[in-house]
Formats: sequence, structure tokens, C-alpha cells
Amino acid sequence: MPKGLKTVAIAALAAVTAAPAAGAQDITATRQLSIHLASEAAQAALAQCTQQGYRVSVAVYDRSGLLRAYLRGDGASPHTYDSATRKAFTAATLGRTTAEVAKRIHENPESAGLANIPGILPLGGGAPIKIGDEVVGGIGVAGAPGGDKDEACSNAGIAKVQDRLK
Amino acid sequence: MPKGLKTVAIAALAAVTAAPAAGAQDITATRQLSIHLASEAAQAALAQCTQQGYRVSVAVYDRSGLLRAYLRGDGASPHTYDSATRKAFTAATLGRTTAEVAKRIHENPESAGLANIPGILPLGGGAPIKIGDEVVGGIGVAGAPGGDKDEACSNAGIAKVQDRLK
Amino acid sequence: MPKGLKTVAIAALAAVTAAPAAGAQDITATRQLSIHLASEAAQAALAQCTQQGYRVSVAVYDRSGLLRAYLRGDGASPHTYDSATRKAFTAATLGRTTAEVAKRIHENPESAGLANIPGILPLGGGAPIKIGDEVVGGIGVAGAPGGDKDEACSNAGIAKVQDRLK
Amino acid sequence: MPKGLKTVAIAALAAVTAAPAAGAQDITATRQLSIHLASEAAQAALAQCTQQGYRVSVAVYDRSGLLRAYLRGDGASPHTYDSATRKAFTAATLGRTTAEVAKRIHENPESAGLANIPGILPLGGGAPIKIGDEVVGGIGVAGAPGGDKDEACSNAGIAKVQDRLK
Amino acid sequence: MPKGLKTVAIAALAAVTAAPAAGAQDITATRQLSIHLASEAAQAALAQCTQQGYRVSVAVYDRSGLLRAYLRGDGASPHTYDSATRKAFTAATLGRTTAEVAKRIHENPESAGLANIPGILPLGGGAPIKIGDEVVGGIGVAGAPGGDKDEACSNAGIAKVQDRLK
Amino acid sequence: MPKGLKTVAIAALAAVTAAPAAGAQDITATRQLSIHLASEAAQAALAQCTQQGYRVSVAVYDRSGLLRAYLRGDGASPHTYDSATRKAFTAATLGRTTAEVAKRIHENPESAGLANIPGILPLGGGAPIKIGDEVVGGIGVAGAPGGDKDEACSNAGIAKVQDRLK
Amino acid sequence: MPKGLKTVAIAALAAVTAAPAAGAQDITATRQLSIHLASEAAQAALAQCTQQGYRVSVAVYDRSGLLRAYLRGDGASPHTYDSATRKAFTAATLGRTTAEVAKRIHENPESAGLANIPGILPLGGGAPIKIGDEVVGGIGVAGAPGGDKDEACSNAGIAKVQDRLK
Amino acid sequence: MPKGLKTVAIAALAAVTAAPAAGAQDITATRQLSIHLASEAAQAALAQCTQQGYRVSVAVYDRSGLLRAYLRGDGASPHTYDSATRKAFTAATLGRTTAEVAKRIHENPESAGLANIPGILPLGGGAPIKIGDEVVGGIGVAGAPGGDKDEACSNAGIAKVQDRLK
Repeated sequence: MPKGLKTVAIAALAAVTAAPAAGAQDITATRQLSIHLASEAAQAALAQCTQQGYRVSVAVYDRSGLLRAYLRGDGASPHTYDSATRKAFTAATLGRTTAEVAKRIHENPESAGLANIPGILPLGGGAPIKIGDEVVGGIGVAGAPGGDKDEACSNAGIAKVQDRLK
Repeated sequence: MPKGLKTVAIAALAAVTAAPAAGAQDITATRQLSIHLASEAAQAALAQCTQQGYRVSVAVYDRSGLLRAYLRGDGASPHTYDSATRKAFTAATLGRTTAEVAKRIHENPESAGLANIPGILPLGGGAPIKIGDEVVGGIGVAGAPGGDKDEACSNAGIAKVQDRLK
Repeated sequence: MPKGLKTVAIAALAAVTAAPAAGAQDITATRQLSIHLASEAAQAALAQCTQQGYRVSVAVYDRSGLLRAYLRGDGASPHTYDSATRKAFTAATLGRTTAEVAKRIHENPESAGLANIPGILPLGGGAPIKIGDEVVGGIGVAGAPGGDKDEACSNAGIAKVQDRLK
Repeated sequence: MPKGLKTVAIAALAAVTAAPAAGAQDITATRQLSIHLASEAAQAALAQCTQQGYRVSVAVYDRSGLLRAYLRGDGASPHTYDSATRKAFTAATLGRTTAEVAKRIHENPESAGLANIPGILPLGGGAPIKIGDEVVGGIGVAGAPGGDKDEACSNAGIAKVQDRLK
Repeated sequence: MPKGLKTVAIAALAAVTAAPAAGAQDITATRQLSIHLASEAAQAALAQCTQQGYRVSVAVYDRSGLLRAYLRGDGASPHTYDSATRKAFTAATLGRTTAEVAKRIHENPESAGLANIPGILPLGGGAPIKIGDEVVGGIGVAGAPGGDKDEACSNAGIAKVQDRLK
Repeated sequence: MPKGLKTVAIAALAAVTAAPAAGAQDITATRQLSIHLASEAAQAALAQCTQQGYRVSVAVYDRSGLLRAYLRGDGASPHTYDSATRKAFTAATLGRTTAEVAKRIHENPESAGLANIPGILPLGGGAPIKIGDEVVGGIGVAGAPGGDKDEACSNAGIAKVQDRLK
Repeated sequence: MPKGLKTVAIAALAAVTAAPAAGAQDITATRQLSIHLASEAAQAALAQCTQQGYRVSVAVYDRSGLLRAYLRGDGASPHTYDSATRKAFTAATLGRTTAEVAKRIHENPESAGLANIPGILPLGGGAPIKIGDEVVGGIGVAGAPGGDKDEACSNAGIAKVQDRLK
Repeated sequence: MPKGLKTVAIAALAAVTAAPAAGAQDITATRQLSIHLASEAAQAALAQCTQQGYRVSVAVYDRSGLLRAYLRGDGASPHTYDSATRKAFTAATLGRTTAEVAKRIHENPESAGLANIPGILPLGGGAPIKIGDEVVGGIGVAGAPGGDKDEACSNAGIAKVQDRLK
């Protein structure tokens, strides 16, 4: 696709999604991560953790709740599939890091119910993927010795594709 | 159905359900929300949240634990199906708002087990639907930034049909 | 409750449910089996099978898909819970015997998908419970040596309460 | 949103989605049913079946596998939630009617495995929702006496919004 | 069976179960609740709660983890099946009341994991059924306004059959 | 336990279980496989298959539907846990070999529903464990190249303990 | 790792795994796909299908039943996650293509139970990954118009890494 | 297999697994518990608990998350299957005792999410099985009166095979 046409399309999309959801709209348009981008982010997150000697799984979800990419590094523990995918889903659907979700629950016990929603995992290591302020997905890492270390790898994955998130 | 006959039926129903459950009764009668009412309440709750810019899901359950209506607004996050339906179910089956359930668990840790019952979600946003003191269903909203905002939309849904809940 | 009032209530109910579902109705009324009736039917079905030396489970569902009564006879095999409850649910929700459902699937392979619906078990032994033509529940028996023998016990359960199904 | 801008956006979208998935694309755009359209289609399908005296559930899924609208008509049997939602999901994800899926399995036994995929229900009553040749969702109806009757109501739902599916 | 023979059998059973589990034993014998006893206890618990105006479900499990009897009283909320059966299972498998389990978890947070075991519900209302010190089952009630009130009904169920638990 | 006492106990048990289930009995007694026997049968089945070069899993269930012993041989494929345990459960609860169950379903399509009961696996390799005519459990093997070969190993497991099944 | 040492290790491994499973062995060694290889195979399979205009998901499992890599191509239908992962698992655990499994079930109805084992999907599109005769994993593709087309992409994935499978 | 060859193989393995996961490796090698070892450890753990009069279940998982051995002792409560297997899985996948996991969650509430990962049970009684510092599996015991007593039996199981874990 010619670069110019794509720019127009994305501009048009922005207009569409900015339109008021006034009930008059029949078809909406949503921006989605390509597998190209999702896979590259996952590879970068895995590389970062592997380089540091951490044996991890990495997952990327899109905004519709569909798993786009999953990679289990060599020697990653069995539970890291469930852990990485849930962190990625949580970040994508709540639009914040899973460490923030965990902190919010700890500081506000009446929101503890959040952890009972299927797929939600309030445990550090997941981060939302954004185009500006719009959440378009989430990435999650599991298996490093601590949620902050998992999250650093997630951030490395996002950093790798950051300049193309537009 | 002629209006008059319906009034008689409902009056008779009230008599039936007020009768002592003394074991001598073979067939009981229960009042159920019509899809007409359930759908209208769900639409009103969604409209209220949409108007405020919140991207939410709305669910209505009847007293038998059956989902009657579900609407996912444009752009609502994936987890809002599970969250809205569980809030509605919780309000319908426990007969109180989900915020009250969350508060009760927080203040009385020995009732924490409530959150382990399948389908129960102690998180603000759900409210019971009543005819007088009789719980006939529940409505739940998820996706607004805070349980109180979800609950306000649920209340808007109930308000829309309140005068016909009799 | 005085007999007379009950008769009126039920007559009124019949009028309500016979009314066209034209969207103008806000609250509907449904007739439900009492636990009195459900339990008695289950006991009778179990007694019939026990007398014949069959070790069975018996289940009764109402029209809303709620289990009302379950009895596991002495020595009934573990799987009979799943089998009896699913037969009862199938009869209640499809409104015909489970043997008829099995036959229909066998004779019309394109309806084989019926068996893939959660809770549906196309295996003889379940029968609907009716008030006239109106299905108000289902009963299922499992553990006898053959679906026809299971169904005979289900029928014995219904026969016990037949004259009060009105 | 001004009509003209929307036309541009959709045209641009068509260009985006027609572009070769050559790995060079970072963000893709997808057209989604609005809740406005999904809800209207569901209401129309329910009205059609209700008018004919069928007690049914209706479900609409989008192309991402998210439930958008669900309505349980008065008196619809308990299993109709699972049946209607699975028919709608099947039509949306496979892009054909569920009757066609059932026929294909019947005529080609080696494809019987299709029925083992979670969420797939090869039973008449579901139909894809399309913009031209592009599948953007699915609608499913359950509870009428026969898959062809369920499908007729699904088609009534699509017909109601057909001219706006563009 | 003649009374005398039965006495011998039970005495013999006691001897069998008292034998050291030294690996030399090939077949063991266990005492089980009859459906006669289980059903009677469930009926008594339901009657007690009904008399007090509580709309509840009652469940009885045996020591092998099999549901023996379940009764849903008229008007009991949908969640009471899950709640009553889990309370009964918890009491049967842990050998103490569910209120004690809840208290233990509250006082000893490192045992909070107990609540994560499938089927375990730490919420008042369940009680073990014993022959002397030997746990042979559990009963659970759900739906009354408070775990203590549920438990009182469970106790009424046990009291009804107490003198035959030998 | 002295041999003589045990004989008496078992004889008494036989009397108890032979008694008519006439409702007059409060506590019943059941014979259960000891872990001693279950484990030995599993080891023998595994040894037989291993000797023939088959990489298998072996499972033993008791009559109450509880898993008593499970062994995964070196190199057995992942699915063999589910396959072996379900074959053992099927044989224990239906009281016949899983090859017989598969044949019965094939010859009598209207009993196809059997395969839809949770835990039932109609696939050769499982066999009931009996004391005379009384089914006291089941054993299942999975992973050999063919159900008949799996069943031969199951039979070797039973043969090992046959003379103590009394 | 120096090439030479690796060769020794693998040779030693071959010796280990060739040793009779005579019970005398305490620790065994298994060869596992690296994420390097798994990911490359998945990318190649996806590229092949994308080039042909098919919108698919690709999954790679190892011999232990762990998902190693998953990629959802742009526009792949929702069900393709379940379909691709199950095809890959089936091929890995049964050691043959899923088309062969489907054919075997069709030709030998008494083996139909295979399809009831959790995770087994008898539908063309999956292929085992082997080192010589040793199955070390499986790859599965879903979303192309026909199982043979899915399988062709799976084969392209294997072909990409074939010469390093040693 | 000659002892010498095995030593070489294991030495080579150590070299392989110590190699940097630099992406250049195609096939990795992992050390696995043999069923010989797993079964012996389980038997020893069960014997220890039985000797002390505790009625328990014992489970052993390998590092891939596969159950290798399970034994339910005579009279062990129904829930001990779920409890023992989850403790063993938790210890194997997290590489520490389940008591340590419970303590960590208690002392650091923001890690409470750990308990929400499927299969993770933070309750004393499980212990990792190691070869030096390398976690190769986990063992779990459930049913003794207290997690410390369960853990003591797990430790007895490991002690039995300790000198062969190399």
C-alpha cells in the first residue's frame, strides 16, 4: 500500500473514532496491531529477558481480547503461559500496567473483586500498548524473578515498536 | 391482553406468593421481567454511560439466574462481558447492590467466601431490580472509570422502567 | 392459601401466559413446580427403580433450568449425577423425552449438533413434566440397565404427582 | 460525523484491508458493527419469531468473537442462550450459515472435527452478517421448532439493517 | 436384614477400619450414609428454614465426595445450588463446620490458600455428619440471611437423624 | 488384622450389601480397593507395557469415582493422562471394558449420547476391577499403539492382584 | 556452545533415550525444540499462508504438551486459536498428521472416542515435528479454506527448519 | 545402559543447558525424573504419613507440568487430589516450597495475584525436587492436620531418592 494512502486511511480512522457514539453510526472502525508489530514486540521482550538470564513466556493481546503472539522461551516454567497471557490481557482490557492494578487493589480493598473477573491477573509484568492515549493492546511477561523485572522486558518489547505505533 | 385481566392476574399472583410455603402447595407462580422491560432498561443504562463518554457493557438477569439482555457498547473492553454479567447476576441473586456486597466483605472478613461462589462478583456497578420488596432481577454495568459510575448507569436503567415495576 | 383463591390465581396465570407476547407486557407470570411436588416425584422415581434392583440417581429440573431435587440411591455409580441431571435438563428445555431426542438425531444427522449444546444429553431416561401442553420441568433417571428402564422410573415419578399438575 | 468524511474513512479502510499483508504494515483497520446496528438486528429477529409464536433467544457476535447483543424472549427455554450464542459465533467465525456447516459435516465425515472446536455449533439457525463479501459478524436464533425457522428469524434481523451494511 | 446381622457387620467394619494401614490390607470397608438417611436430613433442614421464612437450598455429600441429596426450596436464589453444595462438600472433606474453616483462614492468613482448592467454600452454613468421631458426610444450607442461620438449619437436619448415626 | 476377623468382616459386608435397599437401612457398607492393591495393579500394568516398548500412562479409579493411583511412564505422550484416567473411570462406573462400551455405541447409534457424559471415554484400554460380580473399580491404560494393546496391559494389572480380590 | 560439544551431547542423548526403560534409570533426558526453532517454523508457516491470501493462526507445541509459539495473522477468525493449538497438540501427542487421525476415525468408528479426549482435534492442518523417527513436537494451522491447505502451510513451517532437526 | 555412558550423557547435558540461550541453539536437552524415581518418592511420602496415622494423597509433577505419579492413601478426603496435585505443581513451577509461596504472599500483598494463576496453590505441603540448583519437579502432600505435617511427608519422599538426583 502506498504510504500516502495509508496516512489518509489512518487520518480518516481517527475522525471516525473521534465521532460521538451518538447511536447514528452503523459501522465503526478500529485500529488493530498487525501481526508484524505484535510478533516483533514479543521477540524483543523475550530477547531482553533471555539476555538477562531469565526464562520467560511473552504474550501480546489485541484490544478485542484476542491473543496475537505467544512465545515460550527455553526452560520457562509451565505456569508462565497462564501468567503471561493473563498479564497481557489485563493490561489490554484495563488499559494500565498490571502492577498498577495490583497496587490499586491493595490500596482499595473494596476493588478486590477485580481479581475475580476471568482473565484478570493483578500481578506485575504486563503493560498496555498505546497509540497516543488509545489502548490498542497489551503485552505480558512471566518467569523473571519479580514483577518489576517481567515488566522491564514488556517495556523493552513496546520500545522496539514504539515509533511505529501511530 | 385486556388491562383489567392483567391486574387481576398480578393481584392473584401476589396472593399466591404471599401464601405460607407450608408444603401443601403444588404449583407456585413467580413474576418475571418481560424482555420488553429488560431490554428497555439495558438500553437506557447504555445510553446514560455512552452520553458520558464511558464505553461499557450492560447486562440484565432475571430472578431465575437467566441472562435476559446484554449489550456491548462500541469500544467496550473485552472483560466487560464477564464483569457486567456477573454484577447483574450478583445483584439479582443476593438482592443488593454489588457495592454493598463488596463493602460487607471488606468489613466482615469471615464472609470473604462469598466471592468464591461461582458468578458472584463483589465489585460496584450492579443493582437489584425490585417490585416493591420483591427482587425480580438485577442489572450490571462495567467499563466506566469506577464502580460508582457504573452503578449510576445501572440506576438510570432501572429508573427508566421503575413505574412499570408493579 | 384457600383453595378457591389458588384456583383463581392459576386461571389468571393461564390468561397471562396465553396473551400474545406483543411487547406491551411488562411483567409476566410463570407457573413453577413447588419443591413439594419435585421432591415427591423424585422419591417415587427412586423407589420404583430401587424396587426393581436398579441403583440409580434421580434429578428434577424446573423450566428455568434450575435443579430442584436430586437423589443418589445407594450404590449408584459416580457418573449417574451427570447423566441424570443432564437427562432432566434436556427433557425440561426441549420439552420431549430424551429417547425422542436421541431418535431424532439418529434419523436426521444434520441435527447432530443438538448433542453439542452444553447440558443436552440425547440418551433415554428423561421425560418432560407438563401441565396440559405446558412444559414446566423435566425428570431424569440414570443407572438402570437401559434407557427404557430409566425412563420407566421417570414416568413413575411423574405418575405419582400427575393429578396435581394443574 | 459528516456523511462525507465517513465515506472517505470507509473508502480508505477498504484500501487498507485490500493491501497485501506483506509484513510491512504496522497498524491495520477493521470495520466493526456498531451496537446501534447489532441491537437493531437482534430486536428485529426477536420480533419476527415472537410474531410467529416462537419463544427464542437471539445473539449477535462481531468478527472479533465478542458478543455484542443478546436478547432472551419471554418463555424461551434455558438452553437457548448457549444455542443462540454458539450459532452466532459459528456463523461469524466460519463465514457461512450454521445449516451449511451442518450439511458440510454430514456430507464429509472427515470434517466432523469442526464440531469439536470450542464455540462451534453445527445446527441451523445462524447466519453471517456481511458488508459485500466481508464477514463482519454473525447472528443466531434458537428456540423455534426447527433450524430453518430459527434461520428465517436471523435473516429477518439481517434484512432490517441490510441497507446500512456498507 | 435382621437387626442382629447388621450389628455384627458394623462391628466387623469397625475392626476393619481400625486395623493399621500397614500395606497388608487388600480390601477396606467404609461406612456410607444411606439415601434414606441423607434425604431425611435434607428434608428436615429445609423444613426448619422454610418454617422461619428463609428460602434456601440444602445439600448432603458423602465422605467420597458424591452428592447424595439436593433440594431447592421454593424461591431460593439461583446461587444457592453452588453455595449449598460447596458448603456441604467442604464440611464433609475437611471434617469441620464451614464457619470454623472461615474463622481459621481469617485468623491465620497463611492458610488462605484453602479457599483456592476447588469445591472448598469457607462460608458459614455447612456442618460435618459424624458417627462418633468418624466423618461420614456433610450437610450445607444456603439462602438464609446469615451463615449462622444457614448452619442452624444444617444442624436441624443432623439432629433429625442423629440417633441413627451409629 | 487377624485373617479370621477380616473374613468375618467381609462376610458381614456381603450380607449388608445383599440386603434389599428397602429404605429401612441407615448406614451401608462398601468394599473399597486399598491403595496397596490399586498401586500394585498400576505398577504391574505399567511394567507389562514398558516391557513391550509402549510408553503409557496407567490409572486406577475406585467405585466412588476417586482416582486412587496414576503413573505416567517415561516418554508417555501428554494426552495419556486424560485418556488413561477417563478409560479407568468409564470402566469403573459402567462396569464393563471401554472396548465393549465403544462397540455398543457403534452398534446402537441411539446410545451415542453415552460419550457425552463427562468422564466417559468409549475407547479401548479400560477394564473393570471386580470382586466376583461386584464392580469395585476400574483400570485404564493409554499410549500403546491400539486399544487392544492398552487393554492387555490393564488386564495384566488386574491379573497381578486377582487372587486377592475377595 | 562449541559445535563439537553439542554433537557429543546429542549423541549421548540418543544413547540415553535408546536405553531400555528397565526401571533402573533415575534421570532421563529428552530433546526439546528451542524457541529459536519453534518460532522460525511458525513464522514460515504463517508467511506461506499469508502469501496465498489465507488468514490463519499458527501454533507449535513441544512433546511435553506445552505451547511454544503462537501467531495470529491479520484478520484470522476468532476460532483459529482453538483450532490451530488443538491441531498442533494432536499432532505432537499422537505423532501423526491430524488428517490421518480424522481418516482413521472415519474408517474405524470404534476409535471415534479419540475425538473426546481433551485437546484432540481430528481435523486436517496439523503435522508432527520429528527428529528422524522421534516426535519432538507438532505444528498446526487453521483458517485456510480446507484442511489440506492448512496442512500445506504447516509443512512449509517444518520444511524451513527441517535440516536443523537433528 | 552402562553407567559410564550415562555419566557422559548427563555431563554433556549439563553443558548443553549451561550454554547461553543465544538463539543459535536448535535443539535443547532437559533432564527429566524417571517414573522409577517419581513413583518411589511418592510411595515413601505416603508411607511416612500413613505411619503417623495421616490419611493423605501424594502427587509428583515434572518440570514440564506433567503429573508423573499420584497415590491416594486409604481414607484420604476427596479434596486431597486437587490439593496435593496443585501443591506439587506449584513447587515444581515456582521452584520453592508452597509454604514459602504462602508466606511471600502474606508478607507482600501486591503479589497476592500469584494465587490467581491456574494450578498455583499457596498452601504448605509442597516442595521442589532438585538436582543441585536445577528444579526438575515437585512433590505435594495433602490431608495431614497442618501444612507443616504435609511438608514433612513430602520431604521424606525427596529424602528417599535424594542421592540419585544427579
